[in-house]
Amino acid sequence: MIFVDACFGKETPYTPVWMMRQAGRYLPEYMEVRKKAGNFLNLCHSPKLASEVTLQPVDIVGVDAAIIFSDILVVPNEMGMELDFVKGEGPVFEKPIREKKDLDKLIGGKEAADKLDYVYETIKLTREKLDKDKALIGFTGAPWTLATYMIEGQGTKTYSVVKKMLYSNPQFLHEVLKKVSEVVKHYLANQIRAGVDVVQIFDSWAAALEKDAYFEFSWRYIKDIVSYIKKEFPNTPIIVFPKGIGAYLDDIDGDFDVFGVDWGTPMELAKEKLGAKYVLQGNMEPCRLYSKVATKEAVEKISSIMQNKRHIFNLGHGILPDVPVENAKYFISLAKEVTKR
Amino acid sequence: MIFVDACFGKETPYTPVWMMRQAGRYLPEYMEVRKKAGNFLNLCHSPKLASEVTLQPVDIVGVDAAIIFSDILVVPNEMGMELDFVKGEGPVFEKPIREKKDLDKLIGGKEAADKLDYVYETIKLTREKLDKDKALIGFTGAPWTLATYMIEGQGTKTYSVVKKMLYSNPQFLHEVLKKVSEVVKHYLANQIRAGVDVVQIFDSWAAALEKDAYFEFSWRYIKDIVSYIKKEFPNTPIIVFPKGIGAYLDDIDGDFDVFGVDWGTPMELAKEKLGAKYVLQGNMEPCRLYSKVATKEAVEKISSIMQNKRHIFNLGHGILPDVPVENAKYFISLAKEVTKR
Repeated sequence: MIFVDACFGKETPYTPVWMMRQAGRYLPEYMEVRKKAGNFLNLCHSPKLASEVTLQPVDIVGVDAAIIFSDILVVPNEMGMELDFVKGEGPVFEKPIREKKDLDKLIGGKEAADKLDYVYETIKLTREKLDKDKALIGFTGAPWTLATYMIEGQGTKTYSVVKKMLYSNPQFLHEVLKKVSEVVKHYLANQIRAGVDVVQIFDSWAAALEKDAYFEFSWRYIKDIVSYIKKEFPNTPIIVFPKGIGAYLDDIDGDFDVFGVDWGTPMELAKEKLGAKYVLQGNMEPCRLYSKVATKEAVEKISSIMQNKRHIFNLGHGILPDVPVENAKYFISLAKEVTKR
Repeated sequence: MIFVDACFGKETPYTPVWMMRQAGRYLPEYMEVRKKAGNFLNLCHSPKLASEVTLQPVDIVGVDAAIIFSDILVVPNEMGMELDFVKGEGPVFEKPIREKKDLDKLIGGKEAADKLDYVYETIKLTREKLDKDKALIGFTGAPWTLATYMIEGQGTKTYSVVKKMLYSNPQFLHEVLKKVSEVVKHYLANQIRAGVDVVQIFDSWAAALEKDAYFEFSWRYIKDIVSYIKKEFPNTPIIVFPKGIGAYLDDIDGDFDVFGVDWGTPMELAKEKLGAKYVLQGNMEPCRLYSKVATKEAVEKISSIMQNKRHIFNLGHGILPDVPVENAKYFISLAKEVTKR
């Protein structure tokens, strides 16, 4: 499988390519299924429909990997936190974690992970239908990103609730992070057993932490999860994507295989700091997909920096809903063409 | 004046300190004046009230510099763009710039800058009342940040409107940036003539651009403004604050005096890359003000990194509205005490 080979740094006929949020609103076919499902969470809960949208970008835009359609917040949801997607506001937990009793109420470990059966079912259905030479990616949020949602209760600009906890009661924050980490370990293991070929850990809110705090409250948990998964599944590549920590790359280490580079981190810098140790994924600025000229410029530049080695093409963040499908197709085919050996 | 000396890298009895957004909602005295003014924009437009809130943090928390109470968006407002502050949404321009005729309608250069007389009047009133040994800081938004608001029409997460313009019609975006730059030059010059001792250029949305695009669409305009001001007012220190470009510090240059370090950029990194060339300002993580322990830890760490040289203490972003005033006072007095020679 080209994608898995590339994750392990092996030579491939071309640099494989996919897009974060590739199963999403820019595709009319996705919007149709989404409508059928009624709402976003229903879509996550329906293996048949989730599998359908997971496969769409492979057929329509020609990516080399499908990523399971789901949401990182299904994990806290199945730990027992009621989740709503409020229009215009995004995800909301009505009863965020603020004290020990809130945490103690939540289901942990394997028991919580096993409740995510609709995800594993989606994986099975998808792996059956997906071409054998295409990879299926499973994913999770990093404990820090999940815990931040669970503690704040919703999206935030200032992270003031979780930061207050971090500074006033770091032990308790660590308790939350440990509990989430244990669920995530079992969740990823279950996903791999169900059939995913690769897993990605999204740390979307990495940049909410200062450097030292990042390593203490986020990175160590990611590393711990990576070690756990690597030990049990050495043949499954692991991608990490901590968004917005371009200024901290010197201290990045761990047993993962691929480091996802966000678009705010120059690819040259990522290559200099991490390229020898890890395969790099990324990092075209997603708004470039509004313009074919801008797309071509970036594809050629990134290809020239990476020399078509130890690289997986992707955007540096999720694809936006108003991108023309034609431009997404152009990006995918150009990335393959330009990197052909 | 200790503050001005420190900006020029001269030795001072202690490291001077102030806080971004120090004239703000965390102060009950501010809230009272704000109520009197009716709304935020009225407060900016009333020199007597604006001067009153400008002076408050000097008296109440003991900062070494006052920063004129105003908003970066008064500039596009006086260029002719109608501005509303919508509750919960922030600033909104009803008619954003989307094409040439929108730009052509706007007033430019000295004519627009001269319309900001209420700012200059605020400066005069404040300078009269402010202690002679305290500095008065004037400020502006960087052309990129201002233009982004003017083009998007409001706050944005994706910057998709301005990015579409950047990729499809970069020449026109440059026209917008040039027109804004010319107003900003006259605006800063007028502020200095009215009595400010230092000026700061805020590039709050610097991180919305990729590295190369940052230098093309933002930094060159900042440098141009800096050169213009330096030539006419060599004794007025200039502080720049491009937020979130910690991964691009290698290419930073220009005739400014102080580089403002955001809290996401480790101070060690900023010192290594820029400390020899520029005085550094910053960069305590603002949420640390929720906890005295966390404040002390950061003040001591930053002081130890900077060795109390070529440094101005500040937060790495604005102070939050729910910070206890007592903790702000503690930060200010501790920063002075710890850095005392």
